[in-house]
Amino acid sequence: MSLHPVLIAGQWRAAHATGSFRSENPATGETLPGEFPISAWADCDAALTAAAEAAPRLRAAGPAKLAQFLTRFAERIEARKAELVEMAHAESGLAKAPRLAEVELPRTTGQLRQGAAAALEGSWALPTIDTKVNIRSLLAPLGPVWVFGPNNFPFAFNSVAGGDFVAAIAAGNPVIAKANSSHPGTTRLLAEEAFAAVGETGLPPATVQLIYRTGHADGERLVADPRTGATGYTGSRSAGLKLKAAADAAGKPIYLELSSVNPVLILPGALAERGAKLAEEFAGSSLLGTGQFCTNPSLVVLVAGEATEQFIAAVKAKFETAAPTPLLSSAVARALAASVTTLQSAGAHLVTGGQAVAAPGYRFCNTLLRVSGDEFLAAPEKLQTEAFGNAALFVVVRDAAQMATLLEHLEGNLTGGFYSDTRGSDDALYAELEPLLRPRVGRLLNDKMPTGVAVSPAMHHGGPFPSTGHPGFTAVGIPASLRRFAQLQCYDNVRAARLPAALQDKSPNGQMWRLIDGQWTQRDIG
Amino acid sequence: MSLHPVLIAGQWRAAHATGSFRSENPATGETLPGEFPISAWADCDAALTAAAEAAPRLRAAGPAKLAQFLTRFAERIEARKAELVEMAHAESGLAKAPRLAEVELPRTTGQLRQGAAAALEGSWALPTIDTKVNIRSLLAPLGPVWVFGPNNFPFAFNSVAGGDFVAAIAAGNPVIAKANSSHPGTTRLLAEEAFAAVGETGLPPATVQLIYRTGHADGERLVADPRTGATGYTGSRSAGLKLKAAADAAGKPIYLELSSVNPVLILPGALAERGAKLAEEFAGSSLLGTGQFCTNPSLVVLVAGEATEQFIAAVKAKFETAAPTPLLSSAVARALAASVTTLQSAGAHLVTGGQAVAAPGYRFCNTLLRVSGDEFLAAPEKLQTEAFGNAALFVVVRDAAQMATLLEHLEGNLTGGFYSDTRGSDDALYAELEPLLRPRVGRLLNDKMPTGVAVSPAMHHGGPFPSTGHPGFTAVGIPASLRRFAQLQCYDNVRAARLPAALQDKSPNGQMWRLIDGQWTQRDIG
Repeated sequence: MSLHPVLIAGQWRAAHATGSFRSENPATGETLPGEFPISAWADCDAALTAAAEAAPRLRAAGPAKLAQFLTRFAERIEARKAELVEMAHAESGLAKAPRLAEVELPRTTGQLRQGAAAALEGSWALPTIDTKVNIRSLLAPLGPVWVFGPNNFPFAFNSVAGGDFVAAIAAGNPVIAKANSSHPGTTRLLAEEAFAAVGETGLPPATVQLIYRTGHADGERLVADPRTGATGYTGSRSAGLKLKAAADAAGKPIYLELSSVNPVLILPGALAERGAKLAEEFAGSSLLGTGQFCTNPSLVVLVAGEATEQFIAAVKAKFETAAPTPLLSSAVARALAASVTTLQSAGAHLVTGGQAVAAPGYRFCNTLLRVSGDEFLAAPEKLQTEAFGNAALFVVVRDAAQMATLLEHLEGNLTGGFYSDTRGSDDALYAELEPLLRPRVGRLLNDKMPTGVAVSPAMHHGGPFPSTGHPGFTAVGIPASLRRFAQLQCYDNVRAARLPAALQDKSPNGQMWRLIDGQWTQRDIG
Repeated sequence: MSLHPVLIAGQWRAAHATGSFRSENPATGETLPGEFPISAWADCDAALTAAAEAAPRLRAAGPAKLAQFLTRFAERIEARKAELVEMAHAESGLAKAPRLAEVELPRTTGQLRQGAAAALEGSWALPTIDTKVNIRSLLAPLGPVWVFGPNNFPFAFNSVAGGDFVAAIAAGNPVIAKANSSHPGTTRLLAEEAFAAVGETGLPPATVQLIYRTGHADGERLVADPRTGATGYTGSRSAGLKLKAAADAAGKPIYLELSSVNPVLILPGALAERGAKLAEEFAGSSLLGTGQFCTNPSLVVLVAGEATEQFIAAVKAKFETAAPTPLLSSAVARALAASVTTLQSAGAHLVTGGQAVAAPGYRFCNTLLRVSGDEFLAAPEKLQTEAFGNAALFVVVRDAAQMATLLEHLEGNLTGGFYSDTRGSDDALYAELEPLLRPRVGRLLNDKMPTGVAVSPAMHHGGPFPSTGHPGFTAVGIPASLRRFAQLQCYDNVRAARLPAALQDKSPNGQMWRLIDGQWTQRDIG
């Protein structure tokens, strides 16, 4: 069977392939039709050359064209919805409804439209003008952006159509997508629609390119290539850190979302007040999507006592009642088993689960583990191993003081949260613990599970290392996510006609917020 | 003689010294009084512990206290102005007036006051509130910041009192200063005033700490230490890249200002129109401060012809007439001689200068070199070696097409500029070349030399690698420079009383600009 073509320089053409791969249906273990190429460096090189040529033309095309493209792409995704959902379901094992058709696909097209609106409006670039000295600056596109998408959102974080894709394009950069190997077919369909939308909008053909897979060495080479502007990567910590090292050494920005156990601290008053409700809430969040969310609550901290034992028992019952849903791939199943073993070898005790479910497909028993606070503090690093999937670890600390000590050993996480009672009995403890948790997480929650990442301007989907590579940037939330794929460009005494539209005296659209002489305004100058 | 004490954890105390050093008067070569310690790791460790303890208390102290400290520090600097100017003059060879007393010291206190105003006003943190989903976020302090100051601004970029210091403190972080070895005495005086201001304001004593020097291995260790929040470094590329590699591997933000040749392209029409004036303007900017500015114009590109020869001859005459002023240190003199040799070995021809001036002190002849475009393109990397000091390289290209080719070989720079004629004859060429220069520089100038970096919100003192480590951040310009020393912190469903003041419904000061439901406003919610 012939290999699927790659999309390079405006052509669907045969890859320079060093090998090939197929995707599987993880719910059944069946190999899916279609064989995809592993590209040699020649493909990366050709894509980089085409993207570098497209970059200045894309900037010159202006925000209206970018917005038109993103909107048209969203419409085309909607028109091909049935086929996309079918393919993503086959490749991911995720439910067609509600998950793929009613939640993730609308979220994806919503992000594309939000990106279009942000590009058109222009405030994301923080245009700043000092009239007295005639210095003007803004964030501007920085060149070709590689997007490595993760396995767990075949639409919403797809390397074509997902959050990083939208942010990079809306900021004015061409994207070279590296498909996730678990859903190449879905990525192919999205790339077909994206490329068609590029053509309809008259953008440079290399605005969107697609490669399915490369060798590891080529991955490290491409993020560091002089033609690369930046990289967005969501995936495993080990692969991400290798790419980070390569990009860092070359001085190329790379934004990574690596791993996170998303600690949830249930304070004693909350447990006393509504323990049964919290067990339900936790189990629902923990098993949602077979636990395969970046923000899955995988580490729960509780104070030893009867209420905690009841909570654990209630969750255990729910975990044992719920049928294990499919994992995303055989690789995820293997990694989950290995992580559970790592946790056990570091001292965690199995409460339930802990082993794979027999075929068909890739499933793992809903798994709970527990350690005491002392045990946790004896191996805090290993016990923060991310067990990506339907598994969670309870840490049962001796008392509030040990909860504080535990927080001091926490790695950087995307999220962290507290449940506290509604009558104030936990408030003093909250006040003591919050300053310890706050700097270690990107998003701090109260009385709410971390799954569910609203695409909203104030959202922060990011956090201190090693959850991401830089604590100042978010991967979700428009317009802030666009600022990752930008360089600050200043114009000093540049003649008026030569300034970009956003920095001219007259606002290009009357809507853009600009910081003029220290005040945010939508008005023109003069 | 006893060693000067270091300032750690609120005490001026004896260093754990592994050695010592003295500063020199570079204008005379004389060793100055006072001996300074090279600290062992124990000092770094103690400073980090103290800073980590101070960090949450500093955040809790709130912006009004930070502003009060910065203002009081500025006042104390002004009260000790005569002694500071005397010391900085002795240690740097820079003129007492106008440079130190009338330009750099007022700039320094001005920056401190701008930082105070920014901290107080609070808009720098981009507070963002989405009322419908009750998600709120802002940029928040990230912990102890190490500041490595450069040699060329004993006040305005001093590791105590300079731009990075102001930005880190105004963003709410404690600073551990690593003095520049060429002006430890000036740094000591500034730290005395800063520490006194800390005491007067009631901030945690470890808000400001000072170490004079460490071993290289300890430098790499401290930027990567878990207690470190971030690092600001301005200095040589080789030392900076080592620190960057260490910080990157640990996932710690580091902001570097490394080196820049600041290309100036003089288009043919401008040269024909006002060549003599440009020669004067260039020579003035090039020799200012003995050429020891980060934004010194060191690479000038001209098109071959009679006008260019006249321009070069005019600059040569000015360079030969002007008496060489002192360099900042013996190390700078050695590095300048080595760089000039590197340029010559790469094909550059000496027009004038090229050797050290005999004692007293450290001076180098005002130096001009030239290469043809062909020669430049044969060794573009070596011919972009920064010759920090009073030296410049002219690249005389064959024609406009070769100018474009040259631009494609330019490294990332802080600045780059064009001179073009006033009647439009250069406009077509400008339009062709600007897209090539623009992505390679942080600040683009028209008809203006790059020296002179206004402290203004729209200023960008930064640029693509290797001029800095990240193209999105500026080291000069308030409030943007504060955003380097911050992490994005999101509050999701957090109870109102637990929110930081800047994210509560009621604005803390009625002045802060907040992005509420997508609109920038100074108003309260509700």
